[in-house]
Amino acid sequence: MRKLSNKPSKQKTEKSNILRIIPLGGCEEVGRNMTVFEYKKDIVILDMGLQFPEEDMPGIDYVIPNIKYLKGKEQNIQGVIFSHGHLDHIGAAPILLKKLGNPLIIGRPLTIEMIKHRQEDINKGSSKLLKTMYINNLQDKIHLGHFTISFFKVDHAIMDAVGVVIKTPIATVIHPGDWMIEHNPVGRTRINYTHLAKLKKPTILMLESLGAVNFKKPVTEKQMLDTLHHLIKSAPGRVIIATFSSQLQRIKQILEYASKIGKKVVLDGFSIKANVEIARKLGYIKPAKGTIIPINNLKKYPDNRIIVICTGSQGEEMSALSRIAAGNHHFIALKKNDTVIFSSSIIPGNERIIQRLKDNIYRLCDNVYHSEIMAVHTSGHSNVIGIQEIIRQIKPTYFIPVYANHFMLKEAAKIAYKMGFPKNRVFVPDNGSIIQFSKKEAKILKEKAPTNYVFVDGLGVGDVGEIVLRDRQMLADDGIFVVIAIIDRQTGKVKGSPDIISRGFVYLKESKELLAQTRKKVIEIVNQTAGSGKVVNWTYVKDNIRNKIGNFLFSKTKRRPIVLPVVIEV
Amino acid sequence: MRKLSNKPSKQKTEKSNILRIIPLGGCEEVGRNMTVFEYKKDIVILDMGLQFPEEDMPGIDYVIPNIKYLKGKEQNIQGVIFSHGHLDHIGAAPILLKKLGNPLIIGRPLTIEMIKHRQEDINKGSSKLLKTMYINNLQDKIHLGHFTISFFKVDHAIMDAVGVVIKTPIATVIHPGDWMIEHNPVGRTRINYTHLAKLKKPTILMLESLGAVNFKKPVTEKQMLDTLHHLIKSAPGRVIIATFSSQLQRIKQILEYASKIGKKVVLDGFSIKANVEIARKLGYIKPAKGTIIPINNLKKYPDNRIIVICTGSQGEEMSALSRIAAGNHHFIALKKNDTVIFSSSIIPGNERIIQRLKDNIYRLCDNVYHSEIMAVHTSGHSNVIGIQEIIRQIKPTYFIPVYANHFMLKEAAKIAYKMGFPKNRVFVPDNGSIIQFSKKEAKILKEKAPTNYVFVDGLGVGDVGEIVLRDRQMLADDGIFVVIAIIDRQTGKVKGSPDIISRGFVYLKESKELLAQTRKKVIEIVNQTAGSGKVVNWTYVKDNIRNKIGNFLFSKTKRRPIVLPVVIEV
Repeated sequence: MRKLSNKPSKQKTEKSNILRIIPLGGCEEVGRNMTVFEYKKDIVILDMGLQFPEEDMPGIDYVIPNIKYLKGKEQNIQGVIFSHGHLDHIGAAPILLKKLGNPLIIGRPLTIEMIKHRQEDINKGSSKLLKTMYINNLQDKIHLGHFTISFFKVDHAIMDAVGVVIKTPIATVIHPGDWMIEHNPVGRTRINYTHLAKLKKPTILMLESLGAVNFKKPVTEKQMLDTLHHLIKSAPGRVIIATFSSQLQRIKQILEYASKIGKKVVLDGFSIKANVEIARKLGYIKPAKGTIIPINNLKKYPDNRIIVICTGSQGEEMSALSRIAAGNHHFIALKKNDTVIFSSSIIPGNERIIQRLKDNIYRLCDNVYHSEIMAVHTSGHSNVIGIQEIIRQIKPTYFIPVYANHFMLKEAAKIAYKMGFPKNRVFVPDNGSIIQFSKKEAKILKEKAPTNYVFVDGLGVGDVGEIVLRDRQMLADDGIFVVIAIIDRQTGKVKGSPDIISRGFVYLKESKELLAQTRKKVIEIVNQTAGSGKVVNWTYVKDNIRNKIGNFLFSKTKRRPIVLPVVIEV
Repeated sequence: MRKLSNKPSKQKTEKSNILRIIPLGGCEEVGRNMTVFEYKKDIVILDMGLQFPEEDMPGIDYVIPNIKYLKGKEQNIQGVIFSHGHLDHIGAAPILLKKLGNPLIIGRPLTIEMIKHRQEDINKGSSKLLKTMYINNLQDKIHLGHFTISFFKVDHAIMDAVGVVIKTPIATVIHPGDWMIEHNPVGRTRINYTHLAKLKKPTILMLESLGAVNFKKPVTEKQMLDTLHHLIKSAPGRVIIATFSSQLQRIKQILEYASKIGKKVVLDGFSIKANVEIARKLGYIKPAKGTIIPINNLKKYPDNRIIVICTGSQGEEMSALSRIAAGNHHFIALKKNDTVIFSSSIIPGNERIIQRLKDNIYRLCDNVYHSEIMAVHTSGHSNVIGIQEIIRQIKPTYFIPVYANHFMLKEAAKIAYKMGFPKNRVFVPDNGSIIQFSKKEAKILKEKAPTNYVFVDGLGVGDVGEIVLRDRQMLADDGIFVVIAIIDRQTGKVKGSPDIISRGFVYLKESKELLAQTRKKVIEIVNQTAGSGKVVNWTYVKDNIRNKIGNFLFSKTKRRPIVLPVVIEV
């Protein structure tokens, strides 16, 4: 990957009047969404998300955007806007805001409160350091240096999701954040985007394109609520609904329906309780008195008056639903006539663990519903038809698909081409691509911003690199094999029998023969390589043990544990 | 899990006239399909498949059925029938057949040849030990003790897939193996199953039910071929088609079309070449002379006359397509105007790796097609409509959904209930369930056959157990931390500075401060616990190092590497 040179640009006169858009994340794997807008010296940032680790990143908690590009430009950051409160848009904020010297953050109330909550979670007391600007009114206009920021309503799977308009002297950027078009919303009017067609041209539509290969007809909110209401009302026993903790709109709707038909609701799961608490404080959720009951009051009501809303729809190991399925939940043991509803989608990568969770729940319970078999969930993302619709409504000058896998961005571009966009008005960025707009032209530069993975693991940010990861993969595959040889300085021979410790390779107690042979082999290797013991090249001895014992174990087992030789001279 | 008692059954008189059906695998996670049929002393087995490892089985190659139930009954096995040549039906054969003393194996020619090939792969020369019976004619009837076996045609994603009828004095079992209903087959007639309704009652339909939650309208073979032909014909450059190596029907069809329009075909990938070779020997594939060309002749033809059929549609690391995408294939470097077609489905668990593969290919190439966006693949499994159709056609007395995730079996049972099956005519087995049929009644016994995982890892079968797996998971998460302390026997004090080796934890060179603190801590711990050095409890010293250093590292990093204390007294 080319790194961006820090040398001053040659086209100095032009540079003074150009807009640069740099997606630092979100254009390759899904997640760690973050976009930098740069005009003259001013910088505005949209979103600071995290990415959940891929399969070849064992032990990693999450991945955050690489902000090397911003190094030395911290003072120029006029503000960081957050489109909504999902982790792939706010999850990296506590780490990155601190590194960037806590610039102003801007967002709708729920979004900012969720950032504060996360900040406190990671580092108690630190949310006080944040400089915040709440967008209480969607009509608000904010001036950040040369940028003028305004907002527009979008439908997405979380309350307070907004789209952002970033006006610059060169062009007007329209970015809906994450979005969908809800054709049958409940309790609010249908959104359309035609008003954005009137913004000052040229306009640049940066469009989250996760639905670019999705041709399925979406479930509408009305359909989903009708289905949920029916299941809740007719349930013979308790109803357990697993959903995302950020699905506050749905939780609100369930609470309202519960109070209407006289059922009680238990909230279970740390994050669901925290999020509902935030939403209540903001007045977004106002449950009727007595509708929410504490979990230890569960038994005070007949089963068919109980609804449990819980976390764990993705099979997360210690979540409420996993504990219920495994039979080690303190308050809830599944009964045959309970109803379990997965009001959720399957996040790619979680397929098998969710299948296993379903298997376990189906074993315990006769009434299990999920979106494969019933309309119990609506997606927060548009499909292909929606992408066509929003492009038709906004009629942008330029189209930049973002916030999805690269292949989806390419497919979204194809949708635009089919609608008549000329090739030079569509840009498909990679992470780190620098898209540059001037009065004269628009282009992707050859140079790129650095975007190497920054891993978060425990307290460490960026301290786990490729070597550590490769070791973890090898350890996971075949374990480790430690050989400890004590060598007599006088004779150069092994004293006694070498010790062997292994983990994750074979069960030692059942491999005595293999161990005996290995010990013999170690003694041979030392005797051959250490020579008479006078001037011994210990690195050579160790390398020999590592390679020869490695090959020996492979020949016997077809496994390649990491071999660690410990050679001690006494 | 209850183990089956070896004590003689109390109902001795009855036992002499009962049929027992025991799915040893395939009824929980998908794969390792294997079913045992037992009547009086006679045993017949259907399929011996492997299961690919779940996410919590790091380093495991695959999982095979547990055959403890058959221990001591090896002599009673009359034969092992294989429904078709997919790995989840034949993959465990080389290991299990040997353990069972090489009983007679029965199958269609391609199936038997694929078993032999796998046998040779694992253990050269061993295929000669197999006792084989080729079903050359689908009308063949085989008598195996009290069992009479016959076969029927099914449509599935591999040639020579058959359904099996197992007639016993108690009941007639109908098992289509893996199956689908192809509504628009090309080059053969549409299959229906009404003839199976005439078999002697009671009949038991054991039905592979992977489609029990699939409501999608299937792509027909005709649609798929039309699409493939169109893409192949109109391709501006080379066409690269990734598919399963066992998709011999499709490979045959592509070869035929290629020769018709004068294109040349390169086969790339070890398993695809091996399978095509087997099919050629059997006369199943007869490519026109000169259609298949060796890969090093690629450059002799213009790009638009080249088709490459290769492995790697699942993103397998060293497969042809992965090497092409990564740019390290010896003969093929992708060009913008190449066409890449994924004529394949996504096996659950491979979603993210395939997304990444697609990302890489989309970067290099403008024309990428997969089943999300185009009809370039047909599934080998039925959907819900097909399940209803086959039940209606066969009209079985009993219905036992099998060969799918447990939750799918439950959903398949619901389909049967909706069609009017009474509850006592439907059995949803777990792995190891014993379903018992007598003249009087049919029931699932309380006792179960053992089905604990048997892991294959390298040359080891069953030698990796839960402890080794748990260690691998811990190693993968946070690595290992080896502390080596040499202790002076005289004083009980650490000699010099303790050595530290770590892998997969932190990059040591960048963690000098942490290491220095840890060394100090180790010295303290030894000095406190080893006492004066006279009578030292070394286990106590080591436990202290393990726990205290573990906690210290966690407090500093929030990671929990495995801590291995090596204490050497000199």
